[in-house]
Amino acid sequence: MRRTTLARILFTWMMLCLFFAGKAQPPRGPFVVSPQVLADKKVTFRYLAPSAREVKLAGGLMGASNMAMVKDSIGIWSVTVGPVRPDIYSYNFVVDGVSVMDPANEDFFPNERFKSSLFEVPGFTPLIHAVRDVPHGSVNYEYYSSVEGTTGTVVVYTPPGYDKDASKKYPVFYLISGTTDTEETFFKVGRTNFILDNLIAEGKAKPMIVVMPYGNMEARIAEQQGGTKPADPVRDSPDAIARMRRFEQDLTKNLIPYIDKQYRTIPNRDNRAIGGFSRGGGQTLRTAFWNMDKFSWICAYSANLPTKELESTYASIVSNPDNTNKQLKLLWVSVGTEDFLYNDVATFLNYLTSKNIHYKSLITGGGHTWINVRTYLTESAQLLFK
Amino acid sequence: MRRTTLARILFTWMMLCLFFAGKAQPPRGPFVVSPQVLADKKVTFRYLAPSAREVKLAGGLMGASNMAMVKDSIGIWSVTVGPVRPDIYSYNFVVDGVSVMDPANEDFFPNERFKSSLFEVPGFTPLIHAVRDVPHGSVNYEYYSSVEGTTGTVVVYTPPGYDKDASKKYPVFYLISGTTDTEETFFKVGRTNFILDNLIAEGKAKPMIVVMPYGNMEARIAEQQGGTKPADPVRDSPDAIARMRRFEQDLTKNLIPYIDKQYRTIPNRDNRAIGGFSRGGGQTLRTAFWNMDKFSWICAYSANLPTKELESTYASIVSNPDNTNKQLKLLWVSVGTEDFLYNDVATFLNYLTSKNIHYKSLITGGGHTWINVRTYLTESAQLLFK
Repeated sequence: MRRTTLARILFTWMMLCLFFAGKAQPPRGPFVVSPQVLADKKVTFRYLAPSAREVKLAGGLMGASNMAMVKDSIGIWSVTVGPVRPDIYSYNFVVDGVSVMDPANEDFFPNERFKSSLFEVPGFTPLIHAVRDVPHGSVNYEYYSSVEGTTGTVVVYTPPGYDKDASKKYPVFYLISGTTDTEETFFKVGRTNFILDNLIAEGKAKPMIVVMPYGNMEARIAEQQGGTKPADPVRDSPDAIARMRRFEQDLTKNLIPYIDKQYRTIPNRDNRAIGGFSRGGGQTLRTAFWNMDKFSWICAYSANLPTKELESTYASIVSNPDNTNKQLKLLWVSVGTEDFLYNDVATFLNYLTSKNIHYKSLITGGGHTWINVRTYLTESAQLLFK
Repeated sequence: MRRTTLARILFTWMMLCLFFAGKAQPPRGPFVVSPQVLADKKVTFRYLAPSAREVKLAGGLMGASNMAMVKDSIGIWSVTVGPVRPDIYSYNFVVDGVSVMDPANEDFFPNERFKSSLFEVPGFTPLIHAVRDVPHGSVNYEYYSSVEGTTGTVVVYTPPGYDKDASKKYPVFYLISGTTDTEETFFKVGRTNFILDNLIAEGKAKPMIVVMPYGNMEARIAEQQGGTKPADPVRDSPDAIARMRRFEQDLTKNLIPYIDKQYRTIPNRDNRAIGGFSRGGGQTLRTAFWNMDKFSWICAYSANLPTKELESTYASIVSNPDNTNKQLKLLWVSVGTEDFLYNDVATFLNYLTSKNIHYKSLITGGGHTWINVRTYLTESAQLLFK
């Protein structure tokens, strides 16, 4: 019986085999290596497009001006740039006016509104964000009950050795990325895990858990409940402030309790930091100042600050500076002089100074870039929980 | 003294503020919602390109024929398709002949050689890969010492409750993606974590750890040691087989010991499964048959099988069928009738039958797609470790 059935199935297969015999593996085209970082720190980019009329290289590296690429006989466009200063950069190809990621490169910039590839020029000795031969922590994607019945995704770094000693508890750093970024951006672009691995290995940072949430509650709700994703609000508008409040509610009511339950944290304000970039910097300051019982350490990186609300949002911290200065173990503010938010940050620092609120600031060159964010993270993480 | 320095810094800031006053936030353009899944399971795609001449929608959903999109007065191209059968699909826009990801969609297909966006049409009741309101496991990115001094990235699923009971140990399923996929593909496209969460919640699968490695050792070495990434080898060529051997060496010598050290595994063959898709299926069969002391459960999904080597690679398992049948708790083989590898898989099954090796097969419709992979994973995972 079983053999008969098998024989029938095999016969059907044979027929199907004949039918599909002509079906070949889909062609992949010429193999393209891109980007290729050369020993002298020049970088070659390549893109296969035999019938394109014009291909250019665009990205943070080049500033406003795109670089022309040249086509070879099989249709691969290429350009070599540099030497490029060792760091991580984003880029795109512009193919007959259309911006595309590099198909041959799996490293990308996680974002809601644009798609870019990433490349890394290694240092002559490994940089602080490089994968070094040191003990590595792990990066965990976790799922928690978030606002309005949605499931939140959050990315959590645990330091090396976290799984080795079940009695050890850790401080926690909540780290929030910018408008249009996702919960993956501080991992994939910020390199938070490798920076912390390396700082911890050098004895420069305390072992800590880093929690990287998604900052856009409204998109989360729309995606999971079938609504329309709303546009980003006008800065400092009532809508923007309402959204920051919704984020703050999710962080304090849902995420912190979840993390304190799921991980071996030290669940008090002296062992809880909050920091963020751009919109995440604004969310950081509001969340911290609205919840001074929960955070002792604050880091604002190129923050989108609510300067219009200085007297309202910050009222609670400026009314009694001595108390604030005693409570806050760190108020870190950093920005680049070419950042479009530089003015606001300067206004904020002046305001803090005029109110006798202590802070640490780092003013660098450069703009609103992840190159700067990695620097700010590297410097400020060394001050936390000490 | 301190106040004088501060005053000087503040003055400099003021000057810089004036200098940069004209610098505005970079424009973002009109807000585009894409994709938008409607209540009736139709899906609207939108792409902003005021000066494009032609924009089409391309992807697995559409087969070979791209769909024309229509431009509105502000330059947003759109098309509505469907109703679409609830599932997860990949797609691209083709803009004046250039294939691009959807800039407004953060869900993507991790891959070395192409860049696609993903969209999900939810079921009327949640599908097996959907985020349901059940206990969730977590997904961990880990870093281990891999081949030739490189650092390997591996993605590890731990089941719900893993962190709750430090005395409980788990079986482990090694799950390998296909050529050009990365260690993220079984997570982001395969939805391994949500499928397992849901099967475990329904009592249909045993709680298990799932380990998702990267399959391309040569690319890893080239990237980390500054070499040139080699092209994919010709199927079943000596180079292909040498590379499978290198993968097998990394898995058995580096990765399994690392996982057994880092996680609470049951480190024996009866509690270790291996499975894979496409090239990962070929790596699965070779690794398993070369290491029958290490694996009792084997899953081949649309596997790129070494049919040329039937008599060599499989010699060890066919020479004593009774022994093999006793040792192997599961040999699962699945493929779609439209898969370009269908013939090879049929040949393999015929061969196994002729040698009296027991197996379980699932022949579906459809081709070499992740829609099929998720089905195969869902069905076979329910058989493991039982």
